[in-house]
Amino acid sequence: MNKALRLVLVDDTERELGALRDALLAAGFEVIAEVDSAFALADVVARLEPDAVIVDTDSPSRDVLEHIAVMHQDAPRPIVMFTDDGSEARIKEAIRAGVTAYVVDGLSPARLKPVLDVAIARFDEERKLRNELADTRQQLLDRKIIDRAKGLLMKRRNIDEDAAYQLLRKTAMTRGQKLAEVARQLVEATELLG
Amino acid sequence: MNKALRLVLVDDTERELGALRDALLAAGFEVIAEVDSAFALADVVARLEPDAVIVDTDSPSRDVLEHIAVMHQDAPRPIVMFTDDGSEARIKEAIRAGVTAYVVDGLSPARLKPVLDVAIARFDEERKLRNELADTRQQLLDRKIIDRAKGLLMKRRNIDEDAAYQLLRKTAMTRGQKLAEVARQLVEATELLG
Repeated sequence: MNKALRLVLVDDTERELGALRDALLAAGFEVIAEVDSAFALADVVARLEPDAVIVDTDSPSRDVLEHIAVMHQDAPRPIVMFTDDGSEARIKEAIRAGVTAYVVDGLSPARLKPVLDVAIARFDEERKLRNELADTRQQLLDRKIIDRAKGLLMKRRNIDEDAAYQLLRKTAMTRGQKLAEVARQLVEATELLG
Repeated sequence: MNKALRLVLVDDTERELGALRDALLAAGFEVIAEVDSAFALADVVARLEPDAVIVDTDSPSRDVLEHIAVMHQDAPRPIVMFTDDGSEARIKEAIRAGVTAYVVDGLSPARLKPVLDVAIARFDEERKLRNELADTRQQLLDRKIIDRAKGLLMKRRNIDEDAAYQLLRKTAMTRGQKLAEVARQLVEATELLG
């Protein structure tokens, strides 16, 4: 049996959060924080690292979507939004802001657990994809700077590409630095020297 | 008003598809194909390009998840699975195979439209991410081959990096080819010549 999922609950309604909180507690979840406005959302989530963020709303406000977008950027976590607004426009806005699961009229206590599990699984898959993208981008940046450094060495020392690469590699090992870091320093120093 | 969404319906149950088909038609969707086994799924989807694929299942079979994974690879479309199995293990398997929305006990006709709209919006967001990843990977590959070609030119012609790049660029423009393609041909030819 897994331990109870730790949730942050966001109230984007005029009502009290009673029904949703009760349903979550009855389903065995732990509500570790309740946020009345979404204002502090990114901070709260970064600090508490909940398993998921639950938003209760009749229709997501511009304000809450903006704070979700900030959180999605700075401290991404699975976000499940329970709402009454099934309009296509609102759905697109919410998904684009980073909502993982947008559930219309779906607040049935028996469905809470699978809805959260699905959102968490989807979030994990998307995170893999985002990590892969960040990693590939970094490889591309590293590659660019390493190739500039190699070109500099080839020209100045009149050596071939392999020799230039080995020289960079040896320097990185001697200094205990990453190859890309040594390359960056070489390129910057050369620019400085003119 | 949008035109009706075109759906492919997959039966992964022992039952007839009656209830789900009726609910989809009543909700105004167009069912353009029904697949009894998932065997031909990737082909059917590649040919018909539906707006989404709907899977009816009590619990997704190994077989149907494998065919979904193939389809997700070769002809990705939004996939909504209506199921009775809310176990965490099955949820993770389904999401990993490429299911966009995994809906447990959620077959209420009023919710069909928002569930599909959410799945399509999520699929579009994920597709953007996948395209970005594919694009960045291609840039990295192009960069590698272009840099190898530059290195070859710098060494053989004793020119600097800029001159090598300009030479490749001019050749690409003259031939009406992409820079990476010219670079690839140069590297291959050089390897052949030894």
